[in-house]
Amino acid sequence: MSQVQITDTILRDAHQCLIATRMRTEDMLPACARLDRMGYWSLEVWGGATFDACLRFLKEDPWERLRQLREALPNTRLQMLLRGQNLLGYRHYSDDVVRAFVARAAANGMDVFRIFDALNDMRNLRTSIDAVKDAGKHAQGAISYTVSPLHTTEQFLRDAEALQAMGCDSIVVKDMAGLLTPMVAGELFAALSQAVDLPLHLHTHATSGQAEMCLLKAIENGCRHIDTAISAFAGGASQAPTEAMIAALRDTPYDTGLDLELAQDIGAYFREVRKKYHQFESEFTGMDTRVQSNQVPGGMISNMINQLREQGALDRLAEVFEEIPRVREDLGYPPLVTPSSQIVGTQAVLNVITGKRYQTITNEVKLYLQGRYGQPPGRINPVVQRKAIGDQEAIDVRPADLLAPEMDSLRKQAGDLAKTEEDVLSFAMFPEIGGEFLKARAAGRLVPEPLEPPHSTSAQDHAPIEFNATLHGETYHIKVT
Amino acid sequence: MSQVQITDTILRDAHQCLIATRMRTEDMLPACARLDRMGYWSLEVWGGATFDACLRFLKEDPWERLRQLREALPNTRLQMLLRGQNLLGYRHYSDDVVRAFVARAAANGMDVFRIFDALNDMRNLRTSIDAVKDAGKHAQGAISYTVSPLHTTEQFLRDAEALQAMGCDSIVVKDMAGLLTPMVAGELFAALSQAVDLPLHLHTHATSGQAEMCLLKAIENGCRHIDTAISAFAGGASQAPTEAMIAALRDTPYDTGLDLELAQDIGAYFREVRKKYHQFESEFTGMDTRVQSNQVPGGMISNMINQLREQGALDRLAEVFEEIPRVREDLGYPPLVTPSSQIVGTQAVLNVITGKRYQTITNEVKLYLQGRYGQPPGRINPVVQRKAIGDQEAIDVRPADLLAPEMDSLRKQAGDLAKTEEDVLSFAMFPEIGGEFLKARAAGRLVPEPLEPPHSTSAQDHAPIEFNATLHGETYHIKVT
Ligand SMILES: [Co+2]
Ligand SMILES: [Co+2]
Repeated sequence: MSQVQITDTILRDAHQCLIATRMRTEDMLPACARLDRMGYWSLEVWGGATFDACLRFLKEDPWERLRQLREALPNTRLQMLLRGQNLLGYRHYSDDVVRAFVARAAANGMDVFRIFDALNDMRNLRTSIDAVKDAGKHAQGAISYTVSPLHTTEQFLRDAEALQAMGCDSIVVKDMAGLLTPMVAGELFAALSQAVDLPLHLHTHATSGQAEMCLLKAIENGCRHIDTAISAFAGGASQAPTEAMIAALRDTPYDTGLDLELAQDIGAYFREVRKKYHQFESEFTGMDTRVQSNQVPGGMISNMINQLREQGALDRLAEVFEEIPRVREDLGYPPLVTPSSQIVGTQAVLNVITGKRYQTITNEVKLYLQGRYGQPPGRINPVVQRKAIGDQEAIDVRPADLLAPEMDSLRKQAGDLAKTEEDVLSFAMFPEIGGEFLKARAAGRLVPEPLEPPHSTSAQDHAPIEFNATLHGETYHIKVT
Repeated sequence: MSQVQITDTILRDAHQCLIATRMRTEDMLPACARLDRMGYWSLEVWGGATFDACLRFLKEDPWERLRQLREALPNTRLQMLLRGQNLLGYRHYSDDVVRAFVARAAANGMDVFRIFDALNDMRNLRTSIDAVKDAGKHAQGAISYTVSPLHTTEQFLRDAEALQAMGCDSIVVKDMAGLLTPMVAGELFAALSQAVDLPLHLHTHATSGQAEMCLLKAIENGCRHIDTAISAFAGGASQAPTEAMIAALRDTPYDTGLDLELAQDIGAYFREVRKKYHQFESEFTGMDTRVQSNQVPGGMISNMINQLREQGALDRLAEVFEEIPRVREDLGYPPLVTPSSQIVGTQAVLNVITGKRYQTITNEVKLYLQGRYGQPPGRINPVVQRKAIGDQEAIDVRPADLLAPEMDSLRKQAGDLAKTEEDVLSFAMFPEIGGEFLKARAAGRLVPEPLEPPHSTSAQDHAPIEFNATLHGETYHIKVT
């Protein structure tokens, strides 16, 4: 089969990037019959920030979302994004939690697990991959793409070979920041197709306007699986538009075989849905090539802007931009992706606003320099390391090797509020908001955050509250009440 | 020189497509020093709908705009779009008007004349090309790209050879509707590079999300000149973003050599400018692949929707879409570009709402079938032709061959209001609005159409126009006037 296959991210990454992961299940379900007819290779529907957003803002049980989508999409592979040993949370979990999580996700309907690690420390993917294989599901190993002196084609080939050796069913290049450019994508996929025997996927973001071109050059060089998003939530911080890629490849040897008119129809549906979430639109999610100049992902920039604003130091953003590559070099060139992007960004902000580099060191940088996130891609700066952790020795084993099993203890902590193993896992991912969710559910007071009514933002913001009006032929100065 | 060169459309096509050609000279000038430093091959700044918009809405003298831009952009070629024997108006002009117009445009600073004809009747380009060469300027011949059984690669090669034989300095493929797909663009440019010795340009619109990919495939196949727009006015109905293409080609054999950071800086400027014109934004200028399904350009669709709405027949849009290919076939497959798009679209609407095909025939269709626009690409339907023009014989000469010189008469008609030859030409292009402009100028009452204050569009769109208000303690039902 030489056709190109599509994974559509409309139900996960697309709305995560453009409306802060706020799309509700009730707005997904009406499109599912049509999405299921499309014939996608898979639909990415779960994982990433969706779990957190469900519990925190939407007051939806993420597991229930998964079951509903499974039922509504009987003919399509469901795919999720899993942060390796972090699962969907922000710390390393013990292996028994990883195994339990994967098993429950599989049992509730997940078919394809895309697994990545922020540092490309492949040891952090091992347990997840094994668990996915044990569940009889598709394990997709991800290479977090970044640009640095260490992230050469040769390095990415080593990563790919490691993923193949670990038993992955496919490999994805995951360019979360939109750093890939088309010719580089072409070369990388040409090399990967030579080096490994697995199907190759490309996941990239349209942030810097390169996505469509990168997908095309990857395809010309052996990639047969691309990630796109239905146009209503495509472009900018999200993926390339599905409809555009279907049209681009139609009547070529790479034809997706997908029905363009059906995709347009789905697009029209989601364009209406998007209006409902207008309060979550941001002017920072449009096309912006600055990441091609400074390698700093968009999401990281808005974090840093917030931090600087809180310190009344917004005027120092340019200095922070200059500081980031230095911090990144000190830390051995981690890819800038969750959580390393936050770790690097926050430390860069501190280095600038304290006026002295590493005078204050975040706890996360300390953990990082203790090896608690895994092995950095490159050599770390020993001076910074000593400042951060003193004479302490950094660990060199896989961080989870030091963690005892914790499911039993999590079950106890969750207590009666957890009715199922899934509830325990929700609590494990986000002890605070997961716990609150379970409590609110038990009390029957799960209320999603309110949505502003259609158009009323603009009307409310902009409508005159005083103006002249003509009434029975007389003009009055009017105040709207 | 193997580098790719860029023509930026930010001052013409980009704002024509996204904000109805409303950008004012005052918002262009502050960016000119930076634009001039970019090192573009050219800046498209004039022609198309800008002349009309200047006179009609902005109450600016288009010739004065040209002179100001010439002065502000001393190091950059200025480029305009010229509709062959139609110049910038909507009828065929006699050759002496064409010569006078080109001579004055050249004298006022124009360097590159992109010349096209809606039917690709190359005879309609002849006088303009000759006049440009006589003025010592760059004549760029355009091939209007379209999709039909007759518009084969072979046909486009014949067009290109004709343009070369007529003395053009370069050739552009002009894909005004966003119909090109990347592999087709690659094949077309591979063939063109073989067939002609002239520099090849690609002008395409991002309407269906193909633009970046088309530019890339064209470049890989011999195209060395691409049209892009600074990102603030790029994408959708406009061109591919300049910054994205600079980044995509950087460090490749096609490197544009342009300064990405400078382009980003210009982008930031125009993003602010765009806010000023928010009242002209439309939801129909976003990415939309439907043109890939029905070959109907976006602008044509909105025209037809307006016509149907006026007739209370909006529900018959689907029938009109089915009728268009039939009318187009009857007319010998004209490319759907001004004015043929309007001619085909209006007749299709009439055929549907009258309930009987060609019961009513527009005057434009009659003129078209008389050969008054030039030679259609294919054979026209003799039954429709007889219905339209009876036993009258269609002309087969170049339409302007039948036109006597008219500059003298135009000078007389314009009278004292015309202070210069340029004024006469403004009047010639648009007798009514050009005449009104000259009158208003003489009376010292040139006032541009008002702009809504920042953010207030949405207020007008969404603010209630009727509501209850409380006035001196009494509640009235109010209509805002
Ligand atoms: Co992503
Ligand atoms: Co154009």
